[in-house]
Amino acid sequence: MNEEELNLLLEELMPLIKERQYAQLYQRVRDLKPADIALLFEEVPMEDVILLFRLLPKDTAAETFVELEPDRQQKLIGAFSDAELKAVLDELYLDDTVDIIEEMPANVVRRIVQYSSPEMRQSINEILNFPADSAGSIMTIEYVDLDAAMTVDNAFEHIRETGWDKETIYTCYVIGTDRRLQGVVTVQQLLLCERCSTIGDIMDRNVISCKTTDNKVDVAQTLNKYDFLALPVVDNEERLVGIVTIDDAIDVLTDDATEDMEKMAAILPSEKTYLRTGVFETWKQRIPWLLLLMLSSTFTQKIINSAEDALSACVALTAFIPMLMGTGGNAGGQASVTVIRGLSLDEIGFSDWLRVFWKEFRVALFCGITLTVANFAKLLIFDHVTMTVAVVVCITLLVVVIFAKIVGCLLPIAAKRIGFDPAVMASPFITTIVDALALLTYFQVAKMLLHI
Amino acid sequence: MNEEELNLLLEELMPLIKERQYAQLYQRVRDLKPADIALLFEEVPMEDVILLFRLLPKDTAAETFVELEPDRQQKLIGAFSDAELKAVLDELYLDDTVDIIEEMPANVVRRIVQYSSPEMRQSINEILNFPADSAGSIMTIEYVDLDAAMTVDNAFEHIRETGWDKETIYTCYVIGTDRRLQGVVTVQQLLLCERCSTIGDIMDRNVISCKTTDNKVDVAQTLNKYDFLALPVVDNEERLVGIVTIDDAIDVLTDDATEDMEKMAAILPSEKTYLRTGVFETWKQRIPWLLLLMLSSTFTQKIINSAEDALSACVALTAFIPMLMGTGGNAGGQASVTVIRGLSLDEIGFSDWLRVFWKEFRVALFCGITLTVANFAKLLIFDHVTMTVAVVVCITLLVVVIFAKIVGCLLPIAAKRIGFDPAVMASPFITTIVDALALLTYFQVAKMLLHI
Repeated sequence: MNEEELNLLLEELMPLIKERQYAQLYQRVRDLKPADIALLFEEVPMEDVILLFRLLPKDTAAETFVELEPDRQQKLIGAFSDAELKAVLDELYLDDTVDIIEEMPANVVRRIVQYSSPEMRQSINEILNFPADSAGSIMTIEYVDLDAAMTVDNAFEHIRETGWDKETIYTCYVIGTDRRLQGVVTVQQLLLCERCSTIGDIMDRNVISCKTTDNKVDVAQTLNKYDFLALPVVDNEERLVGIVTIDDAIDVLTDDATEDMEKMAAILPSEKTYLRTGVFETWKQRIPWLLLLMLSSTFTQKIINSAEDALSACVALTAFIPMLMGTGGNAGGQASVTVIRGLSLDEIGFSDWLRVFWKEFRVALFCGITLTVANFAKLLIFDHVTMTVAVVVCITLLVVVIFAKIVGCLLPIAAKRIGFDPAVMASPFITTIVDALALLTYFQVAKMLLHI
Repeated sequence: MNEEELNLLLEELMPLIKERQYAQLYQRVRDLKPADIALLFEEVPMEDVILLFRLLPKDTAAETFVELEPDRQQKLIGAFSDAELKAVLDELYLDDTVDIIEEMPANVVRRIVQYSSPEMRQSINEILNFPADSAGSIMTIEYVDLDAAMTVDNAFEHIRETGWDKETIYTCYVIGTDRRLQGVVTVQQLLLCERCSTIGDIMDRNVISCKTTDNKVDVAQTLNKYDFLALPVVDNEERLVGIVTIDDAIDVLTDDATEDMEKMAAILPSEKTYLRTGVFETWKQRIPWLLLLMLSSTFTQKIINSAEDALSACVALTAFIPMLMGTGGNAGGQASVTVIRGLSLDEIGFSDWLRVFWKEFRVALFCGITLTVANFAKLLIFDHVTMTVAVVVCITLLVVVIFAKIVGCLLPIAAKRIGFDPAVMASPFITTIVDALALLTYFQVAKMLLHI
């Protein structure tokens, strides 16, 4: 459902809501997908949301609740009767419940925990104890487990009995009495294999799994690499404790890309979407780097001060400072962003640093020469500067572009090696370094050639 | 399998390969996942790749082939006997075959097409005719279709008979005699419903589908939004022609994020991974924007020239040019990158432009004031500049930060509105605009306050 469709639907529903036409409202909303009902709920007034929510079938209601933004969820929980809250909680998958709890204030959390079943409560606590970026924090404990001795028919029986409250039934995990993971079998295998055989015969014994403590981004990339629908999560004793499903993996990968972009733009990443983040929060995300980078420009300032006489001797030089710093920044930014993305997609490893360096060096050489030639022509034909000034500017340009690309490609790799976040080594950070070098080279070359 | 594991495996296998220990090699490679065998194949000499490839079971061989980089695929095809090529092609899914064909030179394509079955050939041509960024270009035509009149048992029979060559069997599509899409039913529903009922009773009649011509990124986001494993693709007569599966959707989303990052860094996006892209290709991706941005700095150059006398009258001013331009660029970059990402994730629409503007304006005000205060203190305490110069610099700083953030947030939205790519309106582009404005403001304020 896109923006127009949503607006049309709103125009259609609002009158019905005003006139309390429950029957018609139900007819109209019943067939919508939860994700779309959630979009709708974000637009209608809160009191109507509660009204509409009560019209929804139990399972749709729960799925819709999961899709809502935290603020709406909180308001809804506030409006729920204890019975309603319990009904919704009973329908939720554990991993969704945990996601919600993580967004709610303490008093709401207390109420949620109070109305979840004891086992549920225990599992919630276990998952909440995993670090925020770990596989454990995004796993669900609702999976289908089978016994190697089962026949395919037994397995289908077992799936029919236990599958109704599972997030996915398509990948089943074969575990022993010690809950150790013995193998994995898909429903596709079960459906297509000879019916007589046992699970032990058809299961894949060499299972790819992850630890509860593994980084969730690596886990998501593993799911993607092997085209799995789910990945089993084991504890340190290799016991199966949960699974990570593909839908959560996609969200992890999307959020990770967003975070990288934010870091590359000198922003502290946030969980919330742009429009849901308050002005003060946004300020807090952006001001630290702005301040740091602003103060770090003291270097360029000092360099220029020290070159005062050179500049006053040949004022023309000043005019090219922005071009030199800008081009350096762009050249370095190109290299760093490419390498940072390559690192986070595991296309580049530390061992590749020499290949990357050698490649960037040649690219830098070609880019530098192209730019220098173009600039030299421009300086002489359009800007009518003296030959010496043109030479000074162009030599600096070439040096800066080459240096910028090398710094741009090596800094992120080095950062990752020493456990820093490569994404932070992007354009803004590199620009500051390149700016300083650009000016140093510029004035050095100028002093030499202009005999200042 | 990570880098170390791969290297260990290589050390273990290379001797076996040298000594042609086929039996042991088979034992060792048999249990590896295709994605890992592909990693292995990228590292061993080509002649050994062919040797190892011939040891693989037919289906594993095909899956591995799909995971290989184009250059290896091409070399392998060159080494295949006609029978071998046919065997691999028979195992491939259509969408994978098409992906491979798109990467191969004409003579290889001719050979592939020659050895695919006539129907296959026709389907390949149809898919190749869809625009590269369309849903049609990433769809597969191997899906399970059911009839509404079937009982659940019939359905399972049908799946067992036809499912073996399908990429996914978990979402089945119910179509009428005219091949129009009537509904969708999942294997989970089939397994958990009453066995007596017919498909017509349990299928979901309000199906979310996409057109062959829809943009593949929108399609991938739809899959993600609704947590589907596959999305049906219909032609203009609403007839089912294929499905897009979740694994392809993930790749589309990842590539899209990478492309956005490249565009934001003033790089023309490429399909290939960094290390696989040649130096000349990389140069071609990067030089156009570098040139354009370099030449566009003519504006800043002219502005500085026009302010020559002001600068020579008060040389101290020059020292703060980098700080003013840098901070402006960073402030604008933060706003643009956030908005660009919001636009591509559909979190921001054109209708939000006023909200975005109002938010960025306030954020800019707070950031601007913080920076100005910090900078004012620094100028007086550490840089010992005159009060007037400090005031000139700080007024400019405030104006520039506010302007930068407003341009940064509005340009991408405007670009998207008029059908341009918002990602191009990122830092480098905005920096150029902000640089010019920073200097204009700077010298204007300076002339006024310093009475130059």
